[in-house]
Amino acid sequence: MTTTTPTIIDVPIGIDATGERTEFDSMGNVDVPAGRYWGAQTQRSLIHFSIGNDHMPIEVYRAYGIVKKAAAIVNQKAGRLADWKAKAIVQAADETIAGKLDTEFPLFVWQTGSGTQSNMNINEVLSNRAIQLLGGELGSQEPVGPNDDVNMGQSSNDSFPTAMHIAAITEIDERLLPSLKALHAEIAKKSKLWMDVVKIGRTHLEDAVPLTVGQEWSGYAAMIEGVIREIEHSRMGLLKLALGGTAVGTGLNAPEGFSIKVAEEIAALTGKDFITAPNKFEAQGSLDAMVRAHAALRGAAVSLMKIANDMRWLASGPRTGFAELLLPANEPGSSIMPGKVNPTQCEAIVMIAIQVIGDDTAVAFAGSQGNFELNAMRPIIINNYLHSARILGDGVAKFLEFSVKGTELNKDKIAQYVGDSVMLVTALSPVIGYQNSAHIAEDAIAKGTTLREAALALGKVTAEQFDKIVNPLDMVGTGVGGA
Amino acid sequence: MTTTTPTIIDVPIGIDATGERTEFDSMGNVDVPAGRYWGAQTQRSLIHFSIGNDHMPIEVYRAYGIVKKAAAIVNQKAGRLADWKAKAIVQAADETIAGKLDTEFPLFVWQTGSGTQSNMNINEVLSNRAIQLLGGELGSQEPVGPNDDVNMGQSSNDSFPTAMHIAAITEIDERLLPSLKALHAEIAKKSKLWMDVVKIGRTHLEDAVPLTVGQEWSGYAAMIEGVIREIEHSRMGLLKLALGGTAVGTGLNAPEGFSIKVAEEIAALTGKDFITAPNKFEAQGSLDAMVRAHAALRGAAVSLMKIANDMRWLASGPRTGFAELLLPANEPGSSIMPGKVNPTQCEAIVMIAIQVIGDDTAVAFAGSQGNFELNAMRPIIINNYLHSARILGDGVAKFLEFSVKGTELNKDKIAQYVGDSVMLVTALSPVIGYQNSAHIAEDAIAKGTTLREAALALGKVTAEQFDKIVNPLDMVGTGVGGA
Amino acid sequence: MTTTTPTIIDVPIGIDATGERTEFDSMGNVDVPAGRYWGAQTQRSLIHFSIGNDHMPIEVYRAYGIVKKAAAIVNQKAGRLADWKAKAIVQAADETIAGKLDTEFPLFVWQTGSGTQSNMNINEVLSNRAIQLLGGELGSQEPVGPNDDVNMGQSSNDSFPTAMHIAAITEIDERLLPSLKALHAEIAKKSKLWMDVVKIGRTHLEDAVPLTVGQEWSGYAAMIEGVIREIEHSRMGLLKLALGGTAVGTGLNAPEGFSIKVAEEIAALTGKDFITAPNKFEAQGSLDAMVRAHAALRGAAVSLMKIANDMRWLASGPRTGFAELLLPANEPGSSIMPGKVNPTQCEAIVMIAIQVIGDDTAVAFAGSQGNFELNAMRPIIINNYLHSARILGDGVAKFLEFSVKGTELNKDKIAQYVGDSVMLVTALSPVIGYQNSAHIAEDAIAKGTTLREAALALGKVTAEQFDKIVNPLDMVGTGVGGA
Amino acid sequence: MTTTTPTIIDVPIGIDATGERTEFDSMGNVDVPAGRYWGAQTQRSLIHFSIGNDHMPIEVYRAYGIVKKAAAIVNQKAGRLADWKAKAIVQAADETIAGKLDTEFPLFVWQTGSGTQSNMNINEVLSNRAIQLLGGELGSQEPVGPNDDVNMGQSSNDSFPTAMHIAAITEIDERLLPSLKALHAEIAKKSKLWMDVVKIGRTHLEDAVPLTVGQEWSGYAAMIEGVIREIEHSRMGLLKLALGGTAVGTGLNAPEGFSIKVAEEIAALTGKDFITAPNKFEAQGSLDAMVRAHAALRGAAVSLMKIANDMRWLASGPRTGFAELLLPANEPGSSIMPGKVNPTQCEAIVMIAIQVIGDDTAVAFAGSQGNFELNAMRPIIINNYLHSARILGDGVAKFLEFSVKGTELNKDKIAQYVGDSVMLVTALSPVIGYQNSAHIAEDAIAKGTTLREAALALGKVTAEQFDKIVNPLDMVGTGVGGA
Repeated sequence: MTTTTPTIIDVPIGIDATGERTEFDSMGNVDVPAGRYWGAQTQRSLIHFSIGNDHMPIEVYRAYGIVKKAAAIVNQKAGRLADWKAKAIVQAADETIAGKLDTEFPLFVWQTGSGTQSNMNINEVLSNRAIQLLGGELGSQEPVGPNDDVNMGQSSNDSFPTAMHIAAITEIDERLLPSLKALHAEIAKKSKLWMDVVKIGRTHLEDAVPLTVGQEWSGYAAMIEGVIREIEHSRMGLLKLALGGTAVGTGLNAPEGFSIKVAEEIAALTGKDFITAPNKFEAQGSLDAMVRAHAALRGAAVSLMKIANDMRWLASGPRTGFAELLLPANEPGSSIMPGKVNPTQCEAIVMIAIQVIGDDTAVAFAGSQGNFELNAMRPIIINNYLHSARILGDGVAKFLEFSVKGTELNKDKIAQYVGDSVMLVTALSPVIGYQNSAHIAEDAIAKGTTLREAALALGKVTAEQFDKIVNPLDMVGTGVGGA
Repeated sequence: MTTTTPTIIDVPIGIDATGERTEFDSMGNVDVPAGRYWGAQTQRSLIHFSIGNDHMPIEVYRAYGIVKKAAAIVNQKAGRLADWKAKAIVQAADETIAGKLDTEFPLFVWQTGSGTQSNMNINEVLSNRAIQLLGGELGSQEPVGPNDDVNMGQSSNDSFPTAMHIAAITEIDERLLPSLKALHAEIAKKSKLWMDVVKIGRTHLEDAVPLTVGQEWSGYAAMIEGVIREIEHSRMGLLKLALGGTAVGTGLNAPEGFSIKVAEEIAALTGKDFITAPNKFEAQGSLDAMVRAHAALRGAAVSLMKIANDMRWLASGPRTGFAELLLPANEPGSSIMPGKVNPTQCEAIVMIAIQVIGDDTAVAFAGSQGNFELNAMRPIIINNYLHSARILGDGVAKFLEFSVKGTELNKDKIAQYVGDSVMLVTALSPVIGYQNSAHIAEDAIAKGTTLREAALALGKVTAEQFDKIVNPLDMVGTGVGGA
Repeated sequence: MTTTTPTIIDVPIGIDATGERTEFDSMGNVDVPAGRYWGAQTQRSLIHFSIGNDHMPIEVYRAYGIVKKAAAIVNQKAGRLADWKAKAIVQAADETIAGKLDTEFPLFVWQTGSGTQSNMNINEVLSNRAIQLLGGELGSQEPVGPNDDVNMGQSSNDSFPTAMHIAAITEIDERLLPSLKALHAEIAKKSKLWMDVVKIGRTHLEDAVPLTVGQEWSGYAAMIEGVIREIEHSRMGLLKLALGGTAVGTGLNAPEGFSIKVAEEIAALTGKDFITAPNKFEAQGSLDAMVRAHAALRGAAVSLMKIANDMRWLASGPRTGFAELLLPANEPGSSIMPGKVNPTQCEAIVMIAIQVIGDDTAVAFAGSQGNFELNAMRPIIINNYLHSARILGDGVAKFLEFSVKGTELNKDKIAQYVGDSVMLVTALSPVIGYQNSAHIAEDAIAKGTTLREAALALGKVTAEQFDKIVNPLDMVGTGVGGA
Repeated sequence: MTTTTPTIIDVPIGIDATGERTEFDSMGNVDVPAGRYWGAQTQRSLIHFSIGNDHMPIEVYRAYGIVKKAAAIVNQKAGRLADWKAKAIVQAADETIAGKLDTEFPLFVWQTGSGTQSNMNINEVLSNRAIQLLGGELGSQEPVGPNDDVNMGQSSNDSFPTAMHIAAITEIDERLLPSLKALHAEIAKKSKLWMDVVKIGRTHLEDAVPLTVGQEWSGYAAMIEGVIREIEHSRMGLLKLALGGTAVGTGLNAPEGFSIKVAEEIAALTGKDFITAPNKFEAQGSLDAMVRAHAALRGAAVSLMKIANDMRWLASGPRTGFAELLLPANEPGSSIMPGKVNPTQCEAIVMIAIQVIGDDTAVAFAGSQGNFELNAMRPIIINNYLHSARILGDGVAKFLEFSVKGTELNKDKIAQYVGDSVMLVTALSPVIGYQNSAHIAEDAIAKGTTLREAALALGKVTAEQFDKIVNPLDMVGTGVGGA
């Protein structure tokens, strides 16, 4: 018998069929919508796990496309997978990566904790799409089977965390880090611009000694710098891939060297420095790298909340608040109070920060719940990670565009506060001592006089001395490094 | 001049237009998609707050429909709103309640913390739909304006938390409580069914004295009973509505008596015992009732996690685990290990529980961040509340249907364990003392003998005594209340 | 042979010995400090679990004293325990309850998850103290043994959670609830006192329409009322006692009726409505009642944080903040800035609130980690519960005494703000419409004019109308229930 | 007038006085216990903030001793502080560092959020001790004043976070990292020792394919390695010191160059690579470095919990659990069940892990609550950090000593499981396909036969093939890196 090598047909994506098609898996037959590529196990999952509105993020499947493509290429090169099979799988994977099969991945987050159902979803979709490309019969699992071919040399246990890492890194590279870097640049710019505007400092919410607006904002810039540095540090942990550990980390049913080759292939496909995880039992039994990566997002939340809070408090007013900052008025603030403008971008950032901190609790908890050779809390962790990265990334972009960029100073108010504050008395302390200085401040507050009046009244300094020493311009030091 | 009272035209839902339409608000004109009912402020929010994938839950808008309807009716009865205006608003509100306008509410969770943008969204949609019903020009705000008519006597500050409470109660009444009650019934049924099956108890994961499977499950049933009771308790706090406090709780611009009447109207419309909150400054300045209500959901998570964990551990195996329970095999468990079946429903419940606990962190944090007359963390709180209730409700329903109902006992294994355990020695303790008993148990473990052999070897009891005293059937007591 | 009934000797507390004494348990001999009452198992725990500085709270042992006393009485009445033995145990238990043996309970929180080591600690201490009272030899376990006599009819598994509940209820009854009630009374008093002082409201931190200081504080009072109500509700769950379930809930080795009788005895001894838990498998397999009780403490934290934050923001200044409130100056605020006074009591409350929310995360997590017949996370839960209740109770007492009581109004500033705010324009909205009103407010803000000037400039109201309508006194409504 | 330079007298630590002594601060006089070194502000704090049992950790004061010593040396070198004054302050600081003045620091955690009261506590103690050493009058603030001399060039705002960082690094260097490294070494040793013991793997708690015990433990070792690496990374952020920023970050009242010199001095005193923080506004306005450092501790908790859980589950039994591991029996496990041994060290680790995760919630929350130039949540953060590091450090040491070191394998049981498992069928999958393999496994489970029997019954492999392919020894791969 002569067999011809099957060739790929030019069939556009899509199945022109209605009603249902019978698919099968090891448990038997299942009817699936005839217009869909997915198979029996996806359908079983839809039946058993339609819970809420939380779908496994599409980014996971696109990353999985890369995993499946890389595995097919490595299997092909090793001669385990026929060229024509590999080619068909690769094309289907490419379509997945490009987002052309997005609607074929309907599963929910709340499914098996290993992500097996999502792995089978992509196995089935690639299988059927490859079958279609090769002119076969959908649902026949021939000539490209979901388990034996698409999943060749893989397990959900190693491939799902691999897809998690790829999806997570993609999200921060493409969305979050660019947003944070742009925010940092704008804040640094404003810090420089406002470096000489003297304002009153506040500690414990109470009047303190002066600094410049630029110094204050330099602190924000340094915070964001730290946030970025930390996310980049956590990213290094995500570069290590579990693929090649298969079922329990031993690599059973994958050929020797698979780990390294497939990581190299993924690195080549993505242009990112992915490597194989040195210990597969850690890589599959724990999700520690993900927990740490989310902690870095949590760090972003903590820092952003402080900055957004500062901004909305300093912009409070217009008549009965701090009123040092003028934020852009993007929309009417109230359905009942006409003319009201609110710091809504700051509020969104604050809520996002709180959500990320809440997500982080879930991630850490889930990270602690692994047992034996598998941490079966993967869907919840990748969903929360991508959720946090997404809302931080988008939220920061909006915050930057619609609030930070347009923020201006109410210089009159800022100057007025500097003049009013009695805490400038601190400059006298090294000269006349802390106790004397304290009595001057207390006197001014009690009597409602200026600091100068109170100081002269106490008689420990002359008017000349006072004017020389208590000069806000001289009290802000130079630069941002303190004394 | 004679004016005719406008009448409602029979126009189906939908705007047959393409391109854009100009809408306006106090800040000026904004172009909106011509095929949409929403107006300027909704569009501004879409521009400024397209953050992530989290949309304000549709349940909030459906609840808001009830708020707007009730307010219109009360305003109409008070003669503040013309009958024909009220009628048009009510029809539009009814359409919202029925879910017919769902696509008109596109806003995101991460918006202004008061929910004003969502309030304006529904104000604008009802305004334009009412205008359409009255033959007016969309976007003209005539004869039914979003602020002056639809929002009459209301503020976002009182109406949004009112919609939150209605949405939350609806969710638990319609989804979560029925699920939990069904789960309770099934567990109670199984507890009864298995009340006489003696099994080995385990404490600290270690072999302990026997109890019956039914007793064990009676504990689960009691836990779920407590969960239900607590959710119902928290529901009482949600029955108190802020509506009537308007902007800051004083009720400015709402007529006297509005609070009570509108709460009565909402109660009538929903068939639920809503009342007006006795203190509007608490009702708007805090979100304490929501924080408490979420704590009740968190309580459900805590209890469910324990039960689901017990089930999956007791079902572990089939050959190398506890293997006391047989859970239904719903799907192949592994992409690489053929024939593997996993406790996936339990895993989903565990992940859901963890997520609810994470959501709870966010809710409590947000609840603490109110300032002055408003807690501006409402969107995050209602989103998390509905999320938690939804995944708990659906998750419990699936868990019940696909795991609890089909769970069976592996009676051979259960019986074997009872025979093997050395902790039955406890029954000897009151007779021969704790120390002697301990030595018997230690001896049996060390030598790998049966408890009986070890006991007789020590010589403190006769074979007859042993057989009389160490009888598992006599060790499980009666009922569930202990001694 | 004639035996005389042993009688109790009048020996004061204390062991006059130095060096070490040999004690034993089922594993063999252990040397303990000769001057201590504890025995072998306590000593073993000290060796194996000296972790950090966290000791099992003394309140747990005092509560355990009640448990042991009640059990001894019930056992005595049932004829299971000789009168003279019971009498000696009861005396030792009374000494524990009175705090006279506090130094005998040195164990750490981080021990066995059932609390067994603490149960054995009290068993050993009562045993040896009873032996001493009866003239026996310390460490002999004769005539009163730690397991067979003091622990008669009990297990750690039922007695430790019983002690937890007693300790928790005692803490809230004696410390937390009195503090909260006193705070509520003071806030309610101030609310009444300041009911007519009109101030500007603030939403989103921004100027809003007026209310009175008394209304604002009525909201705080209502929040604290809710907090108290919720703690009292959670207390009901704590009234149910596990005692009588013994090892796994079946009551093995306890006589029939023990549960009910011992709960009655505890109720009699404490004067509190303790009852036996209807389901012992729930009572021992879960810690749900404790998780719920801590959620009520968490609710207190959430509410208190809002109030303390409001107070410190409203007191911010003195010259460059809101400056509406004058908090007592209790101490110099700064080591470098002379004369500075800070809202330190508020800061302490905020930190306490955050800690309680953190503790709550631990409690919920631990509550979810039960397995089978035991939730072995008891020490962490009771430690966090008592910690939270203690710092809340003490913190609220200090906050009340040193901050709330002495808080005064800066009436000049308050009045000035009311005059300045442009949001009073809201009162014009029902008359001239939302859009016109908005333009007036925007104009006033843009040009820095008064609202009146801007309103007259627009020409939609006359001066007379304006003065009639825009009257802050008329804008605050009546009472606290809104319109 | 001739003045002689005061000289230091050889006075031992201690004040021989009873009753009270009058001290003063800028607010007036305060009586303090005559036998104590502390002054007015410490006493005020004791009056106002005696809340619970949480004292500011002594480690903070010892670290503060280093701060004060370094500042005195730098001030002395700059000629701002007389040599004899500096010498006296340095001696008092040395005594603090050595722990000789521990009882002089009685303040509570719940105090001012800047830590000012603890800064004043040490300022006052060093002032009075220096006065004593110089023969002056206690409480006179002469010749060494708490503010003007001991606190010279410093503020609480920069010195307290500096002390926090020093204390935190000391704790991890001296307690936590050594514990973790020792644990890692032991686990790595056991991993090597058990590298060839084949056992059954488990995923989803269910039987899976085999691996070796050594491979499993290599995963634990890798996890701990990651934990250590991450703590060391976070330590780098703690090396940056705020000192030199004084009140608001500008360095007011500190001489130019103070920041760098004082950091160098601290580095010299501690032998650790401390440097001055490049941005003081970040260093004082945020606590981001502490938040990140605690996240690294949280990471330790997450990993340890997994390992401890694995150990206690694998040791469950002895007769009715997994029973693969034999943990040391350190103490009787039950007060009622004789001979019971429980995995108590594992339970302690699990509880510690949960507590650290709870502490982490508090730290992140507090970290987000900074305002303007100060994050006034410092006491709660350093207290939680030191708490977490302490219980982790001690807990790990005990866990290692009393559980990990003595853990042994139950090799019979381990071998039996390998023989029983049907998941070895996976090895057949590449040969006969996934579906056929699945049917074999299902058949074996359903009929209770061995895998071999079921495989032969299906007829897809011969006995010879089966025996060759299904060989556990060949299924565990080589090493830990997977295929």
